[in-house]
Amino acid sequence: MSNAIPEPVTKLIEAFSRLPGIGPKTASRLTFFLLRAPDELSKSLSDALRDLKTKTTFCTVCYNITSDHQNPCAICADNKRDSKTLVVVEEPLDVLAIERTGSYLGKYHVLHGAISPVDGIGVDDLKIKELVSRVEAGGILEIIIATNPTLEGDMTARYIQDMLNGKGVKVTRLARGLPVGGDLEYVDTVTLTRALQGRSEL
Amino acid sequence: MSNAIPEPVTKLIEAFSRLPGIGPKTASRLTFFLLRAPDELSKSLSDALRDLKTKTTFCTVCYNITSDHQNPCAICADNKRDSKTLVVVEEPLDVLAIERTGSYLGKYHVLHGAISPVDGIGVDDLKIKELVSRVEAGGILEIIIATNPTLEGDMTARYIQDMLNGKGVKVTRLARGLPVGGDLEYVDTVTLTRALQGRSEL
Repeated sequence: MSNAIPEPVTKLIEAFSRLPGIGPKTASRLTFFLLRAPDELSKSLSDALRDLKTKTTFCTVCYNITSDHQNPCAICADNKRDSKTLVVVEEPLDVLAIERTGSYLGKYHVLHGAISPVDGIGVDDLKIKELVSRVEAGGILEIIIATNPTLEGDMTARYIQDMLNGKGVKVTRLARGLPVGGDLEYVDTVTLTRALQGRSEL
Repeated sequence: MSNAIPEPVTKLIEAFSRLPGIGPKTASRLTFFLLRAPDELSKSLSDALRDLKTKTTFCTVCYNITSDHQNPCAICADNKRDSKTLVVVEEPLDVLAIERTGSYLGKYHVLHGAISPVDGIGVDDLKIKELVSRVEAGGILEIIIATNPTLEGDMTARYIQDMLNGKGVKVTRLARGLPVGGDLEYVDTVTLTRALQGRSEL
């Protein structure tokens, strides 16, 4: 059976199989699709994958993903945006979800996860110290916590609230219009806009 | 909104979106998964994609995919296999499906598609001339046509039967144990084995 497929093909099937949600069947479909498709398609995918890690970095201000020649990132560098307000999110994709509503014009802080004792993710694995430093540096009036409406997101929100207590900053959280147990990036823009508008003080 | 994602990230999302069955949502999930995953994962995928086209070629005998340093392919070069019998399939994945049954020890011929006027695929787009040449070169006693049990597969089978008529070769087809309208590569091995055993003369 292994005779039937040359090594470069099995290698790509194996590589695809390591992606989440892609089983061996889908992996071989994708591989054989690319074999038939124009060279340009697999080349552009190969180049984009190579550039993903080499040409991106984390913004040294908000820790969102940015290209290596733009640090601080485009949002942090944008003077038209309100730098007195920060939305704190778990992941870069969450920034995207909020930007998509078009109803927020402040800045961000990306934690890169949420506190989760089960997964061994503690306070020091997240960009919480960095958030506290930003607040202590001054100029920020409101922190809107937009962690996922899950157990981990709630724990993280409470921990951040404690850390910022007495630092002269208003700490709010997105309104509980969010479906509990859901994932922020899948929320539709209308619901997310309402959750932004109806945010409550912690 | 475009501000929120740097170019190397959007480029990869776009490249993933061009794959069949992968929409923009899945494409961005995969991309952000790779951003968090170890560098080695995106690198191995990138390298495998680059090698897919540069290190593979079509076997000059059966037109199956083979690595560039093995032509004729491993199956064609295998003297232990019966070279008096050829199974004719539409795609390289179909070779794999038949190899998986373990019940066929002859050789193959890959057409690279089936006749389909709707899709503009004609006789000259397939490796049919090459099949006729192999038969005319002699030594082949039986051609087992294993095109998909679809309208296009049936048309292709009949055309091949006509082309080989009077050339002193027995032309058979996989038994109609195959689910009509299905796709050969998804058939389970037991059904496929039975279809091989119960093949009927055209």
